[in-house]
Order: sequence, then structure tokens, then C-alpha cells
Amino acid sequence: MSKQPIDFQISAVDGNARTGVLTTRRGGIETPVFMPVGTAGTVKGIRFEQLEADDLDARIILGNTYHLWLRPGIEVIKACGGLHNFIGWERAMLTDSGGFQVWSLADIRKITEEGTEFRSHIDGALCFLSPEISMELQAALGAEIAMAFDECPPGEASREDARRSMDLTLRWAKRSKEAFDDAQAAGLPLDTGASGLSGKQALFGIIQGSSHLDLRHESLERTAEIGFDGYAIGGLSVGEEKPVMLEIIEEIAPRMPADKPRYLMGVGTPEDLVEAVARGIDMFDCVVPTRNGRTGQAFTSRGKLNIKNARFASDTLPLDDSCQCSVCRRHSRAFIRHLYLAGEMLASILLTHHNLAFFLDTMRHVRQAIRSSQFAKFRREFTEHLSSGLE
Amino acid sequence: MSKQPIDFQISAVDGNARTGVLTTRRGGIETPVFMPVGTAGTVKGIRFEQLEADDLDARIILGNTYHLWLRPGIEVIKACGGLHNFIGWERAMLTDSGGFQVWSLADIRKITEEGTEFRSHIDGALCFLSPEISMELQAALGAEIAMAFDECPPGEASREDARRSMDLTLRWAKRSKEAFDDAQAAGLPLDTGASGLSGKQALFGIIQGSSHLDLRHESLERTAEIGFDGYAIGGLSVGEEKPVMLEIIEEIAPRMPADKPRYLMGVGTPEDLVEAVARGIDMFDCVVPTRNGRTGQAFTSRGKLNIKNARFASDTLPLDDSCQCSVCRRHSRAFIRHLYLAGEMLASILLTHHNLAFFLDTMRHVRQAIRSSQFAKFRREFTEHLSSGLE
Repeated sequence: MSKQPIDFQISAVDGNARTGVLTTRRGGIETPVFMPVGTAGTVKGIRFEQLEADDLDARIILGNTYHLWLRPGIEVIKACGGLHNFIGWERAMLTDSGGFQVWSLADIRKITEEGTEFRSHIDGALCFLSPEISMELQAALGAEIAMAFDECPPGEASREDARRSMDLTLRWAKRSKEAFDDAQAAGLPLDTGASGLSGKQALFGIIQGSSHLDLRHESLERTAEIGFDGYAIGGLSVGEEKPVMLEIIEEIAPRMPADKPRYLMGVGTPEDLVEAVARGIDMFDCVVPTRNGRTGQAFTSRGKLNIKNARFASDTLPLDDSCQCSVCRRHSRAFIRHLYLAGEMLASILLTHHNLAFFLDTMRHVRQAIRSSQFAKFRREFTEHLSSGLE
Repeated sequence: MSKQPIDFQISAVDGNARTGVLTTRRGGIETPVFMPVGTAGTVKGIRFEQLEADDLDARIILGNTYHLWLRPGIEVIKACGGLHNFIGWERAMLTDSGGFQVWSLADIRKITEEGTEFRSHIDGALCFLSPEISMELQAALGAEIAMAFDECPPGEASREDARRSMDLTLRWAKRSKEAFDDAQAAGLPLDTGASGLSGKQALFGIIQGSSHLDLRHESLERTAEIGFDGYAIGGLSVGEEKPVMLEIIEEIAPRMPADKPRYLMGVGTPEDLVEAVARGIDMFDCVVPTRNGRTGQAFTSRGKLNIKNARFASDTLPLDDSCQCSVCRRHSRAFIRHLYLAGEMLASILLTHHNLAFFLDTMRHVRQAIRSSQFAKFRREFTEHLSSGLE
């Protein structure tokens, strides 16, 4: 059997939930895993040293191809030796294809069979992205995992629109795979030593189909036929109702190839993560812990905390009494509230750090629960605790 | 001999430059020392863990009484157990009196014999600060070193204005000392174990007199007569020409009580620090490394670097090749430039960290040079190197 770009071994299952290790050329990643989002080459508000520290220990982060392509530009990143070298991060990375970012940020001019024409959200410049261009960009960035170029329809897309979009995404998936294989053949794989890996990048396919279950099933089947190193569910958490999202995950996730990682893109809250794990998902990314941190919201084991609230003015408790992160070991709600109201950068820094700790810690607890066949109990208690109210 | 609030021992002198150890109830501080400014209870853009880390190892930071008084308010800080507990910093602190901040930030309504009436820069509320109020506030904050309440005239003040202001500052210095002694007698000193210290706060007097040398001499003499635990030169770097500033330091610093710390307030650039040490100064504070970091300027051993400059777009060198800080060990100019142009918080975080490292490192080199009687050589080479241009 030929060497693979990544290796994925499941070590325990509990219901549909599973835990295992995803091995990349830049180290192993225990799953289920939450991946902090490093849009423009930085997880906003946090230093890489802290992502690596024991209380976070993030093993993989995201980079956004669209953002990095527009700024600083691929030539700069190439000149600096690829994305890892450019940003100074030696652990694993995943890059998205740019498709979703174009959909959500840019002024889209035209979607054709060939690709997407749009205007940059930074300077309005006319740009064009296609499966081939996305694969070329992602090969230059050099993340361990790249994503196929897809089209993301809105959550409430009609059946007709959703089918048209899904068919296009499938044709783009084939073109992504071909272009990706060409780029990998042309590129110089990293030395992976005795890891048994090929040294190439992995490519994940993306299942679309909006809120239409039959289209989702068809998308899954036809995407799997093309053959990828892992599979993602895209186009969720984009406007549809939460029960619809959970139903689609429940129907689709357990039917995704069992021997490959299953990645739910852009989701979600701590509850969403636990509910999706229960339905068979292995990987997550979301801006919620970092973005909400910057607007004064802390995630805690007893639910969300708005640091602006006057009740915290002299509150000497940490953000979360049961959290062991460096922020909760040192700083009080009163201090962080003061920093936030004074417009101090440290407020965002501390809230971001704590929120990432809470998300990553939740995933650690999830993995332990699955390993000890206690996931159902964990899920029930976690959910109850979340709604129990702050001290 | 009765116990003192601080102890100051000179271990070596070289010309007028001197090195020693200032011992506070929260640890020892090697001098000459640069004190990062933590205006509102945070040194902007940096976590306390990083101030404590080996590459910075800041032993003392500043807090601004004016800012903390207006927000979050002294009652909040008292309720949280004083300034150290409130912000989560166990090392030494110094608080200013609020006098300078009122002068530089607030809308001053009236200066009377009693004190200063002004409007808050935050919400325009009418406030009043006097020697007695400042001492009460500083006692509640509980820093190891407090400052007398002074009036700061502009650098170009006329002799008449400067004298009037200096006389007022002297009367306020006496009132500061009396109010301070009362507050200390009323307060509960910290347990200082076997340190030999009294456990009380120290109070420094401030020498004023604008750019008029004779007034500066008189201010020094009369301030020393009142008797303080240390002495500061205030009212420099406030609009006067640099040679005027250096002349005043040269005249005044060597005549300040030799057995007490000599503190030059609000100064300055790395060159200023070295030049002031050469004239006998022991302590410094300045917002330059943090503020300039946030606007894209790095201090390096070869001079200042504007990270916005296009020449750094693909520059894989660190900010300063001869710097061993955690930023220079990990990140390139190209990456930090990208972060800055993308408006990412991490740009300010990294530039702030490096700039503080450069200032604190410069002071370490200064101390080594004095100890080995090589200060003149160090000063010449440091200055030459600063103007040698970037790689």
C-alpha cells in the first residue's frame, strides 16, 4: 500500500461518537478536535506560544486562503518559505479553499462554470478564483490539509438552486482533485522521516446540498466516489434553523467514510460541538471563541458571561471557577471588565485565551468521555451544567 | 536605626553612572532600571506573564493614579484588595501622583493653593485633586513607591511662572509628606518577613523648576530638606529642547542625595536613558516603547525601524538580529509588517514585546558596563551602533 499524506486511526467509539488520532507530517492530533481560526495568519489576539502552552495545546490551526491571497499575497508567503515559516508556526495547519470567504465577504460579480469572479473586500480589486487557482494557492501555502473549492449556497436555498449549486460543487471537486494531484506531483514533499506518511498535502472534499436531505445524501455519495483524504460538511450554520442543522449532521455524518476524518466546517458553540460529536463528527473550526472574546463574551462551564455586566464590577472570581487556563488562574472578572470598559487590548487578549481554553478543554473532556464509554453521561451533564447559571 | 520602606545600595560607580539594588517589600530591583508604564493597570498590549518572563523580567511597573481613580475607581480596587491583587501582579509597582496626568490629559479648570480642579478626559465630570487626596488614593492603591503631588509647568515656562509653580510644588510636597505619613500610620503594613523593611510605602519627592537651572537647584535643595525616600526630576521632556534637558540632568542629578534613588520621570528614548545614566540617574519610565510599538515602530540596536516600510515586505530577518526576545527568536519583519497592515492585534502585541525587551536589555547592558567600569566605552559604542543603519 502506498504512503498516504495523513493517517487516521480511531481508538474508541461510543454510539456514533468516536475518538482517535489524525497523524500529519507536522505531528499527531487527537480527535475530536477544535481548530482555532487563524484567518490572516494569526489567531486574532493570541500569541503562538500561548496556543502551544499546556492549557491550550492547539495541535492544528486554520488559515484562510482568500485572506492570505489578497494580503500579504502568495508571492510574499512563497518568498518567506510557505505559510508555516511565514507566520512562525511549526504545528499542523488546514487551509480552506476560499470559496466560503468569497461567498461571505466579497462582492461577487459572477459565478460561471469556470469559477467565481468577485471584488476584494479590501480594495475592491477584481479577482477570480477557480478550483485550479485555489489548489495552486493552497499548494503554495503548504498546509497539511487543503480543501476542495466549493460553492456555498445560503441555508434557505430552494431545491432547484441547491441542486444547481451542488452539481457545480461536484464538478469543481473533480477539478480540485485533478489540479491538486498535479500540484502535489510537481511540489517537493517535506521530509517526513520515519512517519510512514507521503509528505504530501491531504485534500478534503466538501458535502453541500443546503437544507435538502436528499441532496446532502447525493452529495455525500458522489463526493466519496471522487475519493478524498477526508470529508467535510459545508454550508451549515449559514442561516438555517438549528434543528435543521442537527438533523443534517445526524443523517450525513454517520454515513461519511468511517476510516476518514469527518469535518464540520464553521461550527459552532460548545453545545454544537458536543451535539455534532454525538453524531459522528471529528473536526471543527469556528471564529466564535475568538470573535466573541473580542466583544466581551466569555464561554464558561455554566454558560455565557457578558463581561460588560455591572454585576462583575467588583467580582474577584475568575471567568470560570472550574477553568485551569492561565487567565482564570490569575485574573478576576472585575479586572477583565475594567480592561474591557477602558478599551484596553488586554481585555480581548485574556477573553480570547480563556475562550479558546474552554473550547479546547471541552474537546479534551469529550475525548476522555468517549474513551471511557461515558459520552452519553458527559453530554447530559455538560448540557445541564451549561444552563445552570453563573455563580 | 528604624526600619525603612525601601533599601537602596549602590554596588558600583563609573563616572557619575551608578548601579545598585533597590529593595522593596515586593522584591529587589537592579538599577539603573526602566519601568514599563501600566497606565490603567495594564502595560498596554502585553500579558503579565510576559513581563515576568526571562527575556523581559520587568521587576517594577508603573500605575497611573489619575487613570485608576477615574476608572475603575478606587472603591473597586479597594474591594479587590488593592492594585496588585486587582491586576494580578505580585512584583513591585510605583504610582504617580496624578499631577502630571491632570496637566497633560484633563481640561484644567482652576489651580488653587488647595489643589487642582479639572474635568475628566473620560466623561467630563468635575474632579478635584490635592496633595491629601492623591496620598489617600495612592495609599489605597498600595504601590511600593508613591509620588508627591506636584504641579508641572510647561518646558518653556517663563521664570516668573516657573518660580510660582515651583513654590506651589514645594508647599504641596510638604503637605504630601504629612498626609502620606498619616496614611501610612493608619494603614496596615504588609508582612515583609525578614527583609528588614518597614512594610510601609515609600514616598518620592519631585524636583521642578522648568528650564531654569537656578530654580532647579533651589527646588532640589528645598525638596531634599523636606526629606523623602527617593527623589525624582519632573517636568522634563515636556517641550524643551533636548540639550536643555540634558544640561538640567547633568547639573541636578549628581547633586541629588547620593544614598537615595534618583528617578527621571517620563524619559525617554534609549539614547536618553543612556545619557541620563551617564549623569547619575537610577530610574526611568516612559510610554515610548509601548506607544510607538502600537504605531508600528520598533527600537533596534541599529536604530528605529518603521515596520510599515515596503522594504520589509519579504524580509525574513527578525526586527533586531542581535535581540534574543521571544519575538525576534520566532517572527520575521515580513510577518509583523503583514500583521500591522492587516490591522491585526498581534502586530501591536509583538512590537510592544520587542520594544520593551530592547529597553530592558539596554538597561541590563548599562548595569554590566558600570559594574565592569566600561560604561564610557559602552555608551560610545551603543550610540555609534544606533546610528549605523539597519541591515
